[in-house]
Amino acid sequence: MKIDNIDLSSYPNSEKIYVKGSRPDIKVGMRKIHQYPTVKIENGKRVEYPNEDITVYDTSGPYTDPEIIIDINKGLPRIKESWIEERNDTEILPDITSMYGRMRRDDKSLDSLRFPVAHKPRKAKEGKVITQMHYARKGIITPEMEYVAIRENLDNERRGIKTYITPEFVREEIAAGRAIIPGNINHPEAEPMIIGKAFSVKLNTNIGNSALSSGIEEEIAKAVWSCYWGGDTLMDLSTGDHIHETREWIVRNCPVPVGTVPIYQALEKVDGDVRKLTWEIYRDTLIEQCEQGVDYFTIHAGVLREHAELVEKRLTGCVSRGGSIMTQWCVLHNEESFLYTHFDEICEILNKYDVGVSLGDGMRPGSTHDANDRAQFLELEVLGRLTEKAWAHDVQVLIEGPGHVPINKIKANVEKEMDVCHEAPFYTLGPLTTDIAPGYDHITSAIGAAIIGTLGTAMICYVTPKEHLSLPTLADVREGVIAYKIAAHAADLAKGFPGANVRDDALSKARYDFRWKDQFNLSLDPEKAKRYYLESRRDAPDADDRFCTMCGPNFCAMRISQNIADECEKSKL
Amino acid sequence: MKIDNIDLSSYPNSEKIYVKGSRPDIKVGMRKIHQYPTVKIENGKRVEYPNEDITVYDTSGPYTDPEIIIDINKGLPRIKESWIEERNDTEILPDITSMYGRMRRDDKSLDSLRFPVAHKPRKAKEGKVITQMHYARKGIITPEMEYVAIRENLDNERRGIKTYITPEFVREEIAAGRAIIPGNINHPEAEPMIIGKAFSVKLNTNIGNSALSSGIEEEIAKAVWSCYWGGDTLMDLSTGDHIHETREWIVRNCPVPVGTVPIYQALEKVDGDVRKLTWEIYRDTLIEQCEQGVDYFTIHAGVLREHAELVEKRLTGCVSRGGSIMTQWCVLHNEESFLYTHFDEICEILNKYDVGVSLGDGMRPGSTHDANDRAQFLELEVLGRLTEKAWAHDVQVLIEGPGHVPINKIKANVEKEMDVCHEAPFYTLGPLTTDIAPGYDHITSAIGAAIIGTLGTAMICYVTPKEHLSLPTLADVREGVIAYKIAAHAADLAKGFPGANVRDDALSKARYDFRWKDQFNLSLDPEKAKRYYLESRRDAPDADDRFCTMCGPNFCAMRISQNIADECEKSKL
Repeated sequence: MKIDNIDLSSYPNSEKIYVKGSRPDIKVGMRKIHQYPTVKIENGKRVEYPNEDITVYDTSGPYTDPEIIIDINKGLPRIKESWIEERNDTEILPDITSMYGRMRRDDKSLDSLRFPVAHKPRKAKEGKVITQMHYARKGIITPEMEYVAIRENLDNERRGIKTYITPEFVREEIAAGRAIIPGNINHPEAEPMIIGKAFSVKLNTNIGNSALSSGIEEEIAKAVWSCYWGGDTLMDLSTGDHIHETREWIVRNCPVPVGTVPIYQALEKVDGDVRKLTWEIYRDTLIEQCEQGVDYFTIHAGVLREHAELVEKRLTGCVSRGGSIMTQWCVLHNEESFLYTHFDEICEILNKYDVGVSLGDGMRPGSTHDANDRAQFLELEVLGRLTEKAWAHDVQVLIEGPGHVPINKIKANVEKEMDVCHEAPFYTLGPLTTDIAPGYDHITSAIGAAIIGTLGTAMICYVTPKEHLSLPTLADVREGVIAYKIAAHAADLAKGFPGANVRDDALSKARYDFRWKDQFNLSLDPEKAKRYYLESRRDAPDADDRFCTMCGPNFCAMRISQNIADECEKSKL
Repeated sequence: MKIDNIDLSSYPNSEKIYVKGSRPDIKVGMRKIHQYPTVKIENGKRVEYPNEDITVYDTSGPYTDPEIIIDINKGLPRIKESWIEERNDTEILPDITSMYGRMRRDDKSLDSLRFPVAHKPRKAKEGKVITQMHYARKGIITPEMEYVAIRENLDNERRGIKTYITPEFVREEIAAGRAIIPGNINHPEAEPMIIGKAFSVKLNTNIGNSALSSGIEEEIAKAVWSCYWGGDTLMDLSTGDHIHETREWIVRNCPVPVGTVPIYQALEKVDGDVRKLTWEIYRDTLIEQCEQGVDYFTIHAGVLREHAELVEKRLTGCVSRGGSIMTQWCVLHNEESFLYTHFDEICEILNKYDVGVSLGDGMRPGSTHDANDRAQFLELEVLGRLTEKAWAHDVQVLIEGPGHVPINKIKANVEKEMDVCHEAPFYTLGPLTTDIAPGYDHITSAIGAAIIGTLGTAMICYVTPKEHLSLPTLADVREGVIAYKIAAHAADLAKGFPGANVRDDALSKARYDFRWKDQFNLSLDPEKAKRYYLESRRDAPDADDRFCTMCGPNFCAMRISQNIADECEKSKL
């Protein structure tokens, strides 16, 4: 397989750099954007003033490192393997554990679809817990913690920007449950990253085929593509054929943490018949995915039998796939959800691989009408109790959130989460602030995401323009990611996150200087910015004009403004 | 001329309706969207439950009325003319007043560009003031006030939704200066609309050619197009050739109020040489445009000589075209701005035609770095004093606002405006909440617009994806308008504006019912929603499937959710 349908050359005048940590194998990838000098005419002479390089957070992993030759049939370099090994608390298993995993492995008909390299799974040694939360609580600063501290700070230190983020601070936040570093020991290819309200707001992207469309190659391309544009984590929501094989390809080639919703696959295993779902099938699915390297699982363990009645009262019922499956299961069996009753066992599986649990909001509102209703808040209270349980097992926790919420109800939503879930990182889908714009829900929800991010949500789950309508294409993934990078960054600026304004100020200065190329290169999507500019400047595509076609040459406020500065200067003489 | 490059058929299953007022000539156009019935299978039988029509605010004027034959060479019906005439406080002038207007009229070389019908200008009779504010303060409820009250309420009364908006309430808000109905007596084609924080949030669109591009036909198409998609007012920011003639075409064919920035044209009249600008040229320009029918003028009268120094200290100087022109004028002449010194005279001109003044924010920040700085707030204080002056002349006032503002500074910005400008309606450009996304500034700014709208901003000025890069195309206008309809509507929902949720709830119900066509038809952009849906359903384009390709048939939460409701129902039997 190859990924030749995506163009990874949209960041001109940029360089992949690595910032080194306390040991040689901590090398944090970042992107450095070079700038052109500011040109001024002084006393009739052309004078150049250099502009600093700008370092930006980089989620693209080795895909933008020209030194690394990527072969997706082999997978990415396993950068965390030595850290995991030297802790000496894990072991390589002789064979994969899950029944299903073995069955798929032994099915010759799948050979052509299979990822070519077989890695044996790694697991905590008997009696060991190996999660980042466990280490943090023991007072241990892991290489992962140091890595994310460096990553969050970019070059703040060099710039003299005061920051509170140290490896020790990272450790404290993880120990307190206010942040997580998702990182399955079976996904050593992923670069460490941190999710928590004290850190920059992260964005998750969703990919995955449904029964109707999308092949493996397309899904890998989407995964790489979403990392390239700025996705911090990636959820594989596949529900169609070959989920197991597709996931292997994605995990082995994904530089960011991968999440899944295991109930989807469990349901596929019983041919979509909710009645036939059992704890045993689900448990085997968890182990299967733990051993493939999934970094966090969405588990709708907060959906209880008693919630079913509340769903009936809603305008749009239950719009969470996992939530609706579990609610139906409870009603059909007239039993409490097996995810809830077996939650301790789930945690005991997860903490052997350091898989985080993302407590699903099965009762998230599917319309602004249903926002902040009893069903949603009751579930949130259950999630709070489950958080305590997970933490008792040193399992790292995220809390998933809405959905559709009008602006006036967002604050109450976040505050409720902070309160009942003890500040476990909130991870929200949008929220969409109105229901009336299918085709533009990346915008309806970027509004909500920026607001909820400002209020302390740690990670926002992107929405593409195709939400509610269709599976996103590559172009939609890019639109969705950029809309959410905007929301996340707007929230970082609003939170006063250390150094967040550096890129804004640099781009604004480039704009004021008419350094068009720098303006493009510093932007989230240089290719599009340049293309839009050139659409109206076909006559002089490379001209560094001191105006744009919006105002034309006579009405450029910025140019006039600079003339004023000159006039003021003169009048002082 | 004709407008044949725009498609005005994107609202299927919709009907133009008119709600009548207290007199037969008050007929308020709205769009009624019909819905299909909800189909259920009950006891093996197909049962249909009808769904109500949904009435939505309609800015498209006669362009969506199949009964009205539009000839843009003749202009739109002059629906307000009889109201104006019967007040008997205006007169038709024998000739146009402005020197420039006469000169253009007498220039035979312009005949081919000229709008074919010449209307004589109307003006207040000697000693009369004829603004809506004047009437409101006298306790008179005009047909315009009744019209907007009906327009804001849609069919709330029929639905039993409690509303506070009565014609008397409208009068009170206008008398207090908290709302305005822009409506030049020379633009009787425009449908009355109201801008104020007690009313639905409005959106302004900008069109206009620059020296580099765009012809008259293209600008008319953009004007109609922006009204069609939902623009509430329209600013013609042309700076290129034939501003006078272009404007005439636009005003005569525009069903919404038209605004301009007269200093642009004044500067064109002196060949772009700021030094040569004079009060006399500006004054003649005001009169020229008052008599053409411009409904509100952006006037940067708050930019004072003392502000020039503050501009120097900024990262991005002065980014307001009008503001930079006036600052430069002050510096070059070492004199106070003639817009400030002649402000009373300006008001005495405006109140003879009922042209509103939109006090320009020449010091609006051009980067998040410069937000809420001294230059901006000092100017805002001047605008507060000018507001008092304008109100003393019964001139209706808007206050223009930023610009680029990070989320954490938006609230302070609105509160400052409310305070120093005595709650005169705030009219903001965005604001953009980050500077790093050229090509996506409709999104960076829709975030800010939704937030500032929620906080009480009365009108938001759209930003297209081409902002900072190029003049918008028709496609960009549509994207910009929809992004801002989303922001405005999200703000209305958040404000709890009476009836705002009706459309959301209807669309959400249609979604839950799998009434795909209704879901499209109720959306802001039915054509795009449908197109996106069909992209992945080419096999069965008209099927009202009970799933979409996002989740596929087995994983549709909403369908499962409905099954749950059925199961719950059964278990009760």
